[in-house]
Amino acid sequence: MALYGASVECSLHCLLFLVDLPADVHASTQELASLQGISVSYVAKLFGALRTAGIVTSVEGIDGGYRLARPADAITVLDVVTALEGDKPMFQCREIRRQCALFESTPPAWATRGMCSIHAVMVEAEARMREVLDAHTLADLAGRVARKAPRSFGVDVVNWFGRRRPARGGSHSSKGASR
Amino acid sequence: MALYGASVECSLHCLLFLVDLPADVHASTQELASLQGISVSYVAKLFGALRTAGIVTSVEGIDGGYRLARPADAITVLDVVTALEGDKPMFQCREIRRQCALFESTPPAWATRGMCSIHAVMVEAEARMREVLDAHTLADLAGRVARKAPRSFGVDVVNWFGRRRPARGGSHSSKGASR
Repeated sequence: MALYGASVECSLHCLLFLVDLPADVHASTQELASLQGISVSYVAKLFGALRTAGIVTSVEGIDGGYRLARPADAITVLDVVTALEGDKPMFQCREIRRQCALFESTPPAWATRGMCSIHAVMVEAEARMREVLDAHTLADLAGRVARKAPRSFGVDVVNWFGRRRPARGGSHSSKGASR
Repeated sequence: MALYGASVECSLHCLLFLVDLPADVHASTQELASLQGISVSYVAKLFGALRTAGIVTSVEGIDGGYRLARPADAITVLDVVTALEGDKPMFQCREIRRQCALFESTPPAWATRGMCSIHAVMVEAEARMREVLDAHTLADLAGRVARKAPRSFGVDVVNWFGRRRPARGGSHSSKGASR
C-alpha cells in the first residue's frame, strides 16, 4: 500500500481549481465533487481537514463554499499532505533491536541508546522526501497545468462555476460549504 | 499505514548479524529467528525474498544456512527494501485528472499528456528518498552498531552461533537454510 493515495490526489486536484477563482466565488463541496467525479461526502471530509489545517476558509450561505486561506504560492504540497495524513511516517519502527536473544530479557543501555541506526536512515530519507514536497506550491502546480492547457481553459472553469450559480439560488435548503 | 515496516526492519536486523560472521558459519532461519525473537516462518519468507534478489546465498545441510552474497559495503538499504517491497510507490496515482467534469467523458489530449503534475512531484520526492536509502550500506549500519556496542559484542555473537553448532548436529531431520 502506497504512503499517499486518493486523499492527497483528490485534495490537490480540488485545490488547484481554487487557485484562480474570481474573488467573489466560493466553491461548494457539491461543485468540487462534480468537477472531480468523486463523492460529496469524500470532498466534505477532505475539506474539513484542509480547513482545520488553515489551508482553506469557508463561508456559509447560498453563495458559500471554500476558498484558499492564503496565496497559492504560500501553500505547499507538504502543507496539504500534512493536513490530510498528519506526520504519518514512511517507516514504522518496532524497536525489534530490543528483542535480540543475546540481551536475554534486558537489553543493555548501549543497545537502546538513541535512535536505531536503521530507523535513522529511514528518518533521513523521509526528510529528503518531505523537502521536495515542501519545495512545490499550489501556484507551481497550477502554473504547470496552465502551460499545458489551452488559454480558454481558465475561462471555461470560471464559466462552469458561473453556470452553477443560478442552480445554487434555486435550492434554499442547501448551506454553503456543507453542500 | 507506513510505507515500510516490519519486513524491512526484521530483514535489516537479521542481515547485520551476517556482516561479521566467520567464513565457515552460515546462519539458519532458526538461528536468525531466535536472535531476533521473531517466527521462523517469517524469517524464511524474508530470506526467500533476499535470496531471490541476490542479497544472500544459502547452503543446504546440517551446517547450512545463509550468508551475505556480496560484501556488506556492496549491499545498500535500498537493495534490501527493493528485495522485500519491489518498487512499491510512495504515491498511488489514480489519474483522477481524467475525470474532470469540464472534459465530459473524453479528456482532451493536453489534459492527459505526460505525467500528472501532482504525480511528478511525488515521483521526484520518492527519488530523493531512495537516494538516501541507496547511500547507506549494511557495512555503514554495522559500523554504527559497532561504535555503540562494547568490544566484546562481536565475540558474543560469534560465540552464540558457536554454541548452537552442537545442537544442529544433534538434529539430523533439519535441513540447513530451511531450518
